Amino acid sequence: MGSKDTTTKRADARRSIDAIVQAAAECLGRNPDASLSEIARAAGVGRVTLYAHFSSRAEVVDAAMSRALDRGNEVLDTVDLTGDPRLALHRYIEAGWHLVDGTRALIVAAQRELSPARILELHAGPAARVEALVARGRAEGHFRTDLPISWMVNVLHSVMHSATEEIRAGRLTSDHAAHHISATVLAAFTTPGTPVPEPAP
Amino acid sequence: MGSKDTTTKRADARRSIDAIVQAAAECLGRNPDASLSEIARAAGVGRVTLYAHFSSRAEVVDAAMSRALDRGNEVLDTVDLTGDPRLALHRYIEAGWHLVDGTRALIVAAQRELSPARILELHAGPAARVEALVARGRAEGHFRTDLPISWMVNVLHSVMHSATEEIRAGRLTSDHAAHHISATVLAAFTTPGTPVPEPAP
Repeated sequence: MGSKDTTTKRADARRSIDAIVQAAAECLGRNPDASLSEIARAAGVGRVTLYAHFSSRAEVVDAAMSRALDRGNEVLDTVDLTGDPRLALHRYIEAGWHLVDGTRALIVAAQRELSPARILELHAGPAARVEALVARGRAEGHFRTDLPISWMVNVLHSVMHSATEEIRAGRLTSDHAAHHISATVLAAFTTPGTPVPEPAP
Repeated sequence: MGSKDTTTKRADARRSIDAIVQAAAECLGRNPDASLSEIARAAGVGRVTLYAHFSSRAEVVDAAMSRALDRGNEVLDTVDLTGDPRLALHRYIEAGWHLVDGTRALIVAAQRELSPARILELHAGPAARVEALVARGRAEGHFRTDLPISWMVNVLHSVMHSATEEIRAGRLTSDHAAHHISATVLAAFTTPGTPVPEPAP
């Protein structure tokens, strides 16, 4: 409904915002300490333009993290979570780890700038997928039912997160991480009194 | 060897530092955002005295966290880690959780102010205990040997840490935490192909 002028302005703003968020994801993905000046430069906009759209570093990090999670959710949409829940869990972990591993530096930036509550909120998409999978695995008798579902979802995310710390500490290489996470979580989800499944190779 | 004057000054300085560190542990233990002014006031010293001994908030948090871990190590020294490694692990988790639970706000402050590497370094005492216990449990055939010991130690600490997040998110109460942690970690440490032990009540 706006005049051609405001329509153009709005389109320009949207283009700038998109460029900034994309540049932020790239710069922070290489270096969690990347400065806003660096991000503005990579986006091809001035600092004034960046500050016109984002009032703080935290807002920029939040937008970059939201974008990474949107992309991540698209990838997770393609993962087959049907069939044996234990195998589905392994497939989810492999895809999920690949996403986490590709955005480790951005995750560090998010942990520094965003509250734990906001980080949890941003992960609502992945959390809902794991929750549904855990619920199905319990209903079908493959996963333990003596612990709350929310706890089990958090265990998976914590173990995945701990892999990024082990890599940072130089005690784990990225190519072993998905196996270790999967072997740990499959065992953690096993009903007491029943045998732990052999991990996928 | 110093004159009476420098001996007195040194004793005064030590008393001030002790008072500041104790006040920091108490104030940050109630509120991770407690200010340095608040801490100086609780210690009964001026801000100038505080800044004479600590150059930054991070240094104060570091000292308070070191103190909490020294106390924690003294408590962990009293935990019987002999006998069946699975029961020993449960006793360690109960004692460890009690310590973590009592210092949750201080841990939040540490996570904000200190690097992950420094936090890891401060936990060297607890980590060495878990490492020795896991190694014995593996040698005696009770814990899995298909994952690195360092990974298993980190899983225990991550799951314990995730309990603090679940409590913060209002999805877990502190009195259930030790049971959930123990039930999860015992299962996670079980050798594939063998049954998960029933968790302690």
